[in-house]
Amino acid sequence: MAEPLFNRLALIGIGHIGASIAGALALHPGTVGHLVIADANPAHLQRAEELHLGDEYVADAAQAVQGADGVILCTPVGSFAALAEAIAPHLMPGCVLSDVGSTKQSVIRDVGPCVPEAVHFVPAHPMAGTEFSGPDAGVPHLFEGRWCLLTPPEGTHEAAVNKIETLWKTLGARTARMGAAHHDRVLAIVSHLPHLIAFTICGTADDLADETREEVLQFAATGFRDFTRIAASDPVMWRDIFVNNKEALLEMFSRFSEDAQAMARAVRWGDTDYIEDRINHSRKIRKSLIDIKQA
Amino acid sequence: MAEPLFNRLALIGIGHIGASIAGALALHPGTVGHLVIADANPAHLQRAEELHLGDEYVADAAQAVQGADGVILCTPVGSFAALAEAIAPHLMPGCVLSDVGSTKQSVIRDVGPCVPEAVHFVPAHPMAGTEFSGPDAGVPHLFEGRWCLLTPPEGTHEAAVNKIETLWKTLGARTARMGAAHHDRVLAIVSHLPHLIAFTICGTADDLADETREEVLQFAATGFRDFTRIAASDPVMWRDIFVNNKEALLEMFSRFSEDAQAMARAVRWGDTDYIEDRINHSRKIRKSLIDIKQA
Repeated sequence: MAEPLFNRLALIGIGHIGASIAGALALHPGTVGHLVIADANPAHLQRAEELHLGDEYVADAAQAVQGADGVILCTPVGSFAALAEAIAPHLMPGCVLSDVGSTKQSVIRDVGPCVPEAVHFVPAHPMAGTEFSGPDAGVPHLFEGRWCLLTPPEGTHEAAVNKIETLWKTLGARTARMGAAHHDRVLAIVSHLPHLIAFTICGTADDLADETREEVLQFAATGFRDFTRIAASDPVMWRDIFVNNKEALLEMFSRFSEDAQAMARAVRWGDTDYIEDRINHSRKIRKSLIDIKQA
Repeated sequence: MAEPLFNRLALIGIGHIGASIAGALALHPGTVGHLVIADANPAHLQRAEELHLGDEYVADAAQAVQGADGVILCTPVGSFAALAEAIAPHLMPGCVLSDVGSTKQSVIRDVGPCVPEAVHFVPAHPMAGTEFSGPDAGVPHLFEGRWCLLTPPEGTHEAAVNKIETLWKTLGARTARMGAAHHDRVLAIVSHLPHLIAFTICGTADDLADETREEVLQFAATGFRDFTRIAASDPVMWRDIFVNNKEALLEMFSRFSEDAQAMARAVRWGDTDYIEDRINHSRKIRKSLIDIKQA
């Protein structure tokens, strides 16, 4: 049997993504020699053990990383600064430290300065996930055919980047490398802003007077139902994403907001040409998506 | 065999909904004695004939309604005023005139005044549809389990309302009656605003500089992909819906816009409590939907 990619891999945080990684690794035995699972939430840790997601279960992240040649942070990005500080002194020389956060500049900002000289830091972002949370929400096939974006800072040890790339490819993902700032801009428009909008419109609907609210529920239509599904995602994870990709998110929000106001103005004044033109315009991106077989 | 519900039913407009009604009627033979299909678009009319969607194919709506005891308008709501004026003199006494438009106050405003004394006008709105258009997009099972909302003005002949209700129930839909103004308000938040937002964000994405746009396409994530699907819907149909439900749509847009601005402000100032609170709030409506088994 080939040598494992990591002799001892520590997953810090066993929520939806952590549990999916553990499940995916179980589909590819031999990829990891020994899988350590850490979670500060005792209920999650116990549940992970009941589900046999790993080989060892540890509450304390600093303890979990000891002797590991691979560590993946799978907690909400807002926890990364404190987490990195706590684990840094315990990271083994040669260890590859990675993460699954949706905001890469903030991760480099929060984790980067703590990383010891001899440790290789490879920020990564598997673009996959459902609206469900917690260790029971693990989906072993989650990453198959999905993208994992790597944003290694310049000068990152190439062998370490390759290892993380190989890990994700083993779990079925396609990988691509890009700068962290560019990643954050792309994610702001394809993921973060759509979530902010979905959360908002569901809140707006819930705030309606009781009679209308009842019928909103009863007659929820396509469109709204899709929004509610998006809005079912984990609050802490998304809160952290929003504030940690503030600049790009607010820029995209500002563009969207201008465009939405222009559309509302056209509705008010009955400017049917403008409305039709903008709708046709928006269909172009759908067509492009279908053309490249993404939709 | 029981008597047909309509001896001669005319479908005016053979797009996605018209073709779906025709397909659904084919699944329930005997519901209609003779099905007349009218469409001003020669290509659509020819295609409807090739697909054997009806018993008779007529370009002119005024000709199609002659001798019909049932007429259903299935064109975009913006065409209803001119259409009603054109067909009114040819409607048979006792005929039941209905429609499938998504905006009911405008339909009553545009069609109501043209309807002859002896004709029964029963506005209806089957809440079903996909993002596809045209006669080839007909889905015979489209209405099964879906709601059809009826908004008959006060004093409408009860037997006529019952006939339209029976028609939709035969095609598998559930029916409910409500006032047109209330219908328009509910639809503004569950359907019209989500579509306006989806069209807008897809346009915003398409307007991005080329490099980002390319990667938006390549890495389109959940959330954005759902939005592009919604945004693929027919431009003329949606243009007409927006301007014909202006008041309710702009009110809901205004509420949404205030809420979105407040969310953006919280992101800018790092007000994590506010963000988390609003996200939790928005999840409530998802939970309610699941509780009543709508989601």
